[in-house]
Amino acid sequence: MSQYHPVRFIDVRLEGAFWKERLDTVLTRTIPSQHRKLGEVGILDSLKLPKPVPPLRIPRHPNGFSVQVFWDSDVGKWIESASYALSHRRDADIEAKIEAIIDDFEAAQEPDGYLNCWYLEREPENRWSNLRDNHELYNAGHMLEGAIAYFETTGRRRWLDIMERYVEHIRQTFGTGPGQKRGYCGHPEIELALVKLYHLTGEKRHLDLAAYFVNERGRQNPHYYDVEKAEREERGIDFQRYIYANYEYSQSHRPVREQTKVVGHAVRAMYLYTAMADLAVELNDAALKSACETLWTDVMDTKMYVTAGLGPSAHNEGFTHDFDLPNQTAYAETCASVALIFWAQRMLHLDLDGKYADVLELALYNGALSGLSHDGEHYFYANPLESNGSAERWAWHTCPCCTMNVSRLVASVGGYFLSTASDGLAFHLYGGISARREIAGTMVEIREISNYPWSGDIRIAIDPETPAAFDVKLRVPGWSKGYNLTVNGEAVTAEPVNGYVTLHRRWAKGDSIALDLPMPAERVYAHPGVIMDTGRVALKRGPLVYCIEEADNPGGAVQRLKLPRDAELETTRRADLFGGAVTLSAPARAIDPTDWHDLYRTQPPREGAATLTALPYYLWANRGNGSMMVWIPEA
Amino acid sequence: MSQYHPVRFIDVRLEGAFWKERLDTVLTRTIPSQHRKLGEVGILDSLKLPKPVPPLRIPRHPNGFSVQVFWDSDVGKWIESASYALSHRRDADIEAKIEAIIDDFEAAQEPDGYLNCWYLEREPENRWSNLRDNHELYNAGHMLEGAIAYFETTGRRRWLDIMERYVEHIRQTFGTGPGQKRGYCGHPEIELALVKLYHLTGEKRHLDLAAYFVNERGRQNPHYYDVEKAEREERGIDFQRYIYANYEYSQSHRPVREQTKVVGHAVRAMYLYTAMADLAVELNDAALKSACETLWTDVMDTKMYVTAGLGPSAHNEGFTHDFDLPNQTAYAETCASVALIFWAQRMLHLDLDGKYADVLELALYNGALSGLSHDGEHYFYANPLESNGSAERWAWHTCPCCTMNVSRLVASVGGYFLSTASDGLAFHLYGGISARREIAGTMVEIREISNYPWSGDIRIAIDPETPAAFDVKLRVPGWSKGYNLTVNGEAVTAEPVNGYVTLHRRWAKGDSIALDLPMPAERVYAHPGVIMDTGRVALKRGPLVYCIEEADNPGGAVQRLKLPRDAELETTRRADLFGGAVTLSAPARAIDPTDWHDLYRTQPPREGAATLTALPYYLWANRGNGSMMVWIPEA
Repeated sequence: MSQYHPVRFIDVRLEGAFWKERLDTVLTRTIPSQHRKLGEVGILDSLKLPKPVPPLRIPRHPNGFSVQVFWDSDVGKWIESASYALSHRRDADIEAKIEAIIDDFEAAQEPDGYLNCWYLEREPENRWSNLRDNHELYNAGHMLEGAIAYFETTGRRRWLDIMERYVEHIRQTFGTGPGQKRGYCGHPEIELALVKLYHLTGEKRHLDLAAYFVNERGRQNPHYYDVEKAEREERGIDFQRYIYANYEYSQSHRPVREQTKVVGHAVRAMYLYTAMADLAVELNDAALKSACETLWTDVMDTKMYVTAGLGPSAHNEGFTHDFDLPNQTAYAETCASVALIFWAQRMLHLDLDGKYADVLELALYNGALSGLSHDGEHYFYANPLESNGSAERWAWHTCPCCTMNVSRLVASVGGYFLSTASDGLAFHLYGGISARREIAGTMVEIREISNYPWSGDIRIAIDPETPAAFDVKLRVPGWSKGYNLTVNGEAVTAEPVNGYVTLHRRWAKGDSIALDLPMPAERVYAHPGVIMDTGRVALKRGPLVYCIEEADNPGGAVQRLKLPRDAELETTRRADLFGGAVTLSAPARAIDPTDWHDLYRTQPPREGAATLTALPYYLWANRGNGSMMVWIPEA
Repeated sequence: MSQYHPVRFIDVRLEGAFWKERLDTVLTRTIPSQHRKLGEVGILDSLKLPKPVPPLRIPRHPNGFSVQVFWDSDVGKWIESASYALSHRRDADIEAKIEAIIDDFEAAQEPDGYLNCWYLEREPENRWSNLRDNHELYNAGHMLEGAIAYFETTGRRRWLDIMERYVEHIRQTFGTGPGQKRGYCGHPEIELALVKLYHLTGEKRHLDLAAYFVNERGRQNPHYYDVEKAEREERGIDFQRYIYANYEYSQSHRPVREQTKVVGHAVRAMYLYTAMADLAVELNDAALKSACETLWTDVMDTKMYVTAGLGPSAHNEGFTHDFDLPNQTAYAETCASVALIFWAQRMLHLDLDGKYADVLELALYNGALSGLSHDGEHYFYANPLESNGSAERWAWHTCPCCTMNVSRLVASVGGYFLSTASDGLAFHLYGGISARREIAGTMVEIREISNYPWSGDIRIAIDPETPAAFDVKLRVPGWSKGYNLTVNGEAVTAEPVNGYVTLHRRWAKGDSIALDLPMPAERVYAHPGVIMDTGRVALKRGPLVYCIEEADNPGGAVQRLKLPRDAELETTRRADLFGGAVTLSAPARAIDPTDWHDLYRTQPPREGAATLTALPYYLWANRGNGSMMVWIPEA
């Protein structure tokens, strides 16, 4: 099979209602309000160096936010988000704000290229002394991603130049050569950013540096974090962050090719695996590919929430043991689901296996998208699958990583729809896009029209400038139980292979494809090992996971409701709800709490008939506080 | 009604099989092994002062246990446990060990009476500088309880004298007088110990000091913990323990009479409320009594596990919000249930209302007793109501508070069975005891014979030396749905009032009472607000809460099992199980995990018929690791 490559965000126009609405919200509400917040909490100020008065060590900002070592990354991610957004609609005001930030970075950068505002302000002499804890390379990665996105959208390369100088400094600092530090970041990120820089520039040294960081990770005898800790102690600058001292936390407990179980901090894991898959593709590295596949199987078989949330525990912001998927206390950080999308996209381009696109889509519409409110200015950091009403979206978060992660995802979502090869075109997602790509030697106008994910009725127009033979691959989602496909009105019967139906023909102007994916509401059950979900059922329709929320089910906590197994699920299009959404409803049973006095009693709860209405999970917690539940007890 | 007072542990002989077995285990296994552990982890060494070489600040013991500010209390509780045990059977070896410890305390005590080994070893100049965090008065309380118990059992008063000198020092140090500190301990305990000292000595100044500590608690403008913190900062010795800075954590957020919701660290709360109830009794303080009743109602209506476990959260070792009773992550510290027994006993003696004895009994047989293994040498600190098999009993705990709390409870359990008044006798618990008390001017031999809690068939012999008229009050437990009562073979029909049937008559030698409490297995349901338990049922029989454990239900995690609501519960006496226990069994449904491949699927789980066998909760985790569940899904 030819090698497929994603069509980048700047080459895909979003036209379908679902993503246009989300994108518009991000453009008009999220990006400006994030910039406001970055200013209010002191993050933008933190870039202005040198400071007139040396600050205290880790002071608290007057409004309660503490200065954090990863603020540079938040700025990088904001510029990245904004740049994706600008690719859809230029905005002089936003661009001026970005340029002002670049002014600060330019002024802050050291002559040798080093650029970390936290260290430059506080302890420039201690740079690169605590890779395990202090996020310097992580910050550099996010800044680099921002610089690349800004360049791709605007063609302006001032920040990219700054970052290339910084990367050059990093290259000289780290490696296996004499006098170099054999380190790597406690929080992976720079690795995948360097692969992006390689894609942009074609310069293999960037790929090599990414490979160095990945290959060095977890090497023992000695472990780099022990080496740097001993050096810090000699210099009297150590302080211990206990959780970081567990090397599983940062996936540095053993070399990456020997890692078989998904462990530790979920976002770190996903960023690392993304880079590993990147390198497996670029370097055709079978051992890395195999490690990625083993890790993928582990997370899919035992560790992923039905929403594609990852990492049940707040303690380590990450993974625990197999099947440990508590609902109310689920951490399931927004960033982790966003990063799962990155990883899935890389895995998809290893073999073009639809199982990766299935997870990409699941995470996109559920665990990741749930992190952004309907109004575009509130966020979930943790994404529980059940709430007694106490969960509430934040206007900001002390650690604001998720806010810009979800906005950069939405603003760049076009980049996940399509891939092309020299002789083919593959549709991974649906939802209304157009693009223009050269395939098989001719320029092809591509247009996909649908009301996905609300409907599975998909129309595709393939318009090559001159007729040409090539593959059109259509993903048939894993959730789909069947499909109807016609080309120019004629039925096509073909079995999907690895989740894709391949239409090979000589395509000519005006050719059209109709793919109909029936979308009945369906029940989903969890493996009995997930003891929290026994006797419970989740509802899905197409790629969307549903939940029941108090706003649609007034009369007390939704935990009073039970769904009989044979109850018919009704699908309703609700134009009044969040600008249009499909709800599910069913006859249900409801526990009557009104006759309870004591905490415990021997008489069973009284039950009555009720109707249950379910809403897509990503829309929850947009109508004030209230109870919510994804896994519904079955009656 | 006359005032009833508990008959002390030294005046009650345990004769029934259930408590004799537990008591024997504590005597022969628990007490000696605890002493060994106290030695192994360095706690006994910590009492030997002065040290030849000044230690590092909070060093770690070579075996990994860290020196803690509350080690003195652990020694105090061990002596208390051992003293209760000695009241059943003297033991020269144990007594020699206690005397050796007293030697150390005697040598360590300062001329002014101060006696805290942690401060004396490390920073004697900083004594009483951090009442909020550092447990000095808490330690003193446990040492005082130990000294009282040792004196009561043996008549030896050397340690009691030491502790009376220390109490005198404390009295001079704290109070509202000029030059005195207006402080009180972050962890209540000394208050209830001082009431015990008052009971022993009759000296009202001890009651007054307890009242001072209770009354001063939570006074504002300024708050004492703010005062001492400012003083520490002036002297440069502050270090901040963030969780302690929340005054709800230590129930010092407002004056105790204004507290209406149960908050914070569960053990602290229970020790405080115990002292409040003590003082309400002793001082006839209606406001304190009313505060206790309000707090009691709050915990009973919204915050107690069905096992009488308290405090769902490991974060604050305590309470969260109403109805937050997660099962798998339940903290439900053993100490909290033990301390609930203390509180319930005090509340019971305010009005002799059986609702308090019901909770005392529930905590005793479930949430507290579950903390001690069958072999008497392993412990639970947290007592979850569900496990995937990862919960395991400890041979010791870094913070060993629970180990000696459960052993002192078992060794002193006789003290909870009976109360007497000048003209009456009340039975609170059953299980086989005998005692000899003066009532209505004559000495009465009392004997209660039963196989409780396995059977509700209770025989009582009342033998006054000379015939006398007095009340015999028999508790009819709240769980009981009916009872049969005869006196000298003649049926008695009487409605229980506040949970007690009162038999008033002229009692004469040879009088006998037969009380039959039918003990069918029964189902218990939780208030719908407890969202973790909707659709689930718990099983009880008499005072015992049951659980299903993998050892009795082999074939995978017990979470596969569901109990149909109409399934009949069968009761089986099992002589082979832990020396005799009653199990419950029922036809059940079981999810078949064998046909699962994926984490999620749309096909419902396959189910088959099964039998479910339930074991008393207190016996769980005595047969290796395995899954367990108290709240069973109903089919």
